Amino acid sequence: MTTADPTPRRLPFHQLVGLLREILVKSGVSQANAEILATNCATCERDGSHSHGLFRIPGYVSTLASGWVDGRAVPRVEDAGPSYVRIDANNGFAQPALAAGRALLVEKVRQSGVAVAAIRNSHHFSALWPDLEPFACEGLVGLSFVTGIACVIPLGGRKPVFGTNPLAFATPVEGHEPLAFDFATSVMSNGDVRIAAQAGRRLPPNSGVNRDGVPTDDPAAILNGGALVPFGGHKGASIILMVEILASALTGGQFSSEVDFSAHPGAETPRTGQLILLIDPARGGNAAFSGRVASLLETVRGAGQQRLPGDRRYRVRRDVEAHGVPISEEQLARLQSYLDP
Amino acid sequence: MTTADPTPRRLPFHQLVGLLREILVKSGVSQANAEILATNCATCERDGSHSHGLFRIPGYVSTLASGWVDGRAVPRVEDAGPSYVRIDANNGFAQPALAAGRALLVEKVRQSGVAVAAIRNSHHFSALWPDLEPFACEGLVGLSFVTGIACVIPLGGRKPVFGTNPLAFATPVEGHEPLAFDFATSVMSNGDVRIAAQAGRRLPPNSGVNRDGVPTDDPAAILNGGALVPFGGHKGASIILMVEILASALTGGQFSSEVDFSAHPGAETPRTGQLILLIDPARGGNAAFSGRVASLLETVRGAGQQRLPGDRRYRVRRDVEAHGVPISEEQLARLQSYLDP
Repeated sequence: MTTADPTPRRLPFHQLVGLLREILVKSGVSQANAEILATNCATCERDGSHSHGLFRIPGYVSTLASGWVDGRAVPRVEDAGPSYVRIDANNGFAQPALAAGRALLVEKVRQSGVAVAAIRNSHHFSALWPDLEPFACEGLVGLSFVTGIACVIPLGGRKPVFGTNPLAFATPVEGHEPLAFDFATSVMSNGDVRIAAQAGRRLPPNSGVNRDGVPTDDPAAILNGGALVPFGGHKGASIILMVEILASALTGGQFSSEVDFSAHPGAETPRTGQLILLIDPARGGNAAFSGRVASLLETVRGAGQQRLPGDRRYRVRRDVEAHGVPISEEQLARLQSYLDP
Repeated sequence: MTTADPTPRRLPFHQLVGLLREILVKSGVSQANAEILATNCATCERDGSHSHGLFRIPGYVSTLASGWVDGRAVPRVEDAGPSYVRIDANNGFAQPALAAGRALLVEKVRQSGVAVAAIRNSHHFSALWPDLEPFACEGLVGLSFVTGIACVIPLGGRKPVFGTNPLAFATPVEGHEPLAFDFATSVMSNGDVRIAAQAGRRLPPNSGVNRDGVPTDDPAAILNGGALVPFGGHKGASIILMVEILASALTGGQFSSEVDFSAHPGAETPRTGQLILLIDPARGGNAAFSGRVASLLETVRGAGQQRLPGDRRYRVRRDVEAHGVPISEEQLARLQSYLDP
């Protein structure tokens, strides 16, 4: 943020999607995949998830240029059982893979009450809540798990094994937008470490280890050969391991520790896997479900929790829907430069 | 532990099961339910999960005597969809409810690749890993979620809303016993608070709040009208909320904050719900799964994590299988006293 740019422009959402789509297509992404990825990225920016919004465009561009990810990949959807969809992303991004299997997945969960999409050979470079929110809008409960690039040590360990391995959950809420959350199962995201390093701030004690496996609160030491620790002590350490098992072993994807893009300078995305699990609460015989969730959230607010996951996101979104996505002239010029270098 | 009892007796596992079954039957539990609960409780004691072993027997007895739980309940299993089993525990314990639906649940997961058992109107008074380990032994991946009695505040809140809301995960591991973990999504279990209070120990800072909602490390203040906090900061706070939604709203069970046994002095068990979710990794087309998990666990150990979830449990179990369950004369006399008061 500079004071030189006090009043950012407002860009209509569809214009931002169009601009991002053009950049991706110019970087070698197929039209169909670019539409999906541009919408996803613009959605993150729109909702204030800036670390997964425009901030990511240089990473998309450099990763595509490196040849590490295939922007034109056509996912292969396999009907693996009455409740089971497997999707080979064919070394493309995870969002087009999910989009390709979506209709079959929803058909299965409506039919059987539960369904899984197991995506492998995929690159996930965004937030997880945009994957789940649309299902929750259709009345479905969703869970998702994704693996990343090894940068998190196991409990008491010295060498990174896990990615920041996010997990996400979404549920319909009667009379409200869905409740959706999404967080790294490491103590913080890599982006937060980078921001602290740039700002010269120390991290909370025991956030990570240096290259020798010694605990440190120095973000630079974590970034230069060190690693993060899992969130939440031994409980979080179990959860980050579970995410690795569900998103990589179960899907048939690579483990975080197997990702090796050293032959592709500029590459930033993990080639691992993603698991999505959907439950249909109505099919399970419980018509009152979303009303019960609404009443629980009222109880939680009444007991003193002032902000629930997603509250800020929906507030920001409403503002953007009225006025457009805020974007600085500098950001806009940088995006334009990808089209007119 | 007293020095007066240096060499506890060793009781063969089946004898311990038999003794516990007799106590439960005498307390009003049906033979069929008593067999299941006695095996469950003896299994916890055998594996060193003492807080869910013999330690629980007085609670079973007093809860049954209070009329709050129905020891003779016959669960009602509903086939709610190709992948969905709903079970009304009919105000009985959760383990007989799961046992009643087990065959149908396994049939469904083998058929479709994924299945859910949604148990409601049930009392869970034990650990969760014994529910999942047998599925993992059959090659299935399992998740489970249970709600409890409100004793945990939401993030930044003042009033308890959640139970200690455990979650559990189990997976087959090629060439090894299953990996299974199970923990409260509060910062600690109620049992740990009681033990600290008895020992006169303070808790780690910000483990809970007193009756006025003020943060405290005094276990007595937490037990006397206060409450615990969720584990793992805002991430754990999201997970404990998710458990409440999955185990209570989705199953049609009561919320933790709705449990009211004040008319049943001596009652200790929650009447809420439990969700069990199974995935068949082979049915999903990934035959290499359990080998991949084994290789991941090797990597994790190689990176320096010395103890994985369950390591201690299996070590203790092997000792017991060779020599019997250790039990002090004092414990044995206390158990006998329920039969010959």
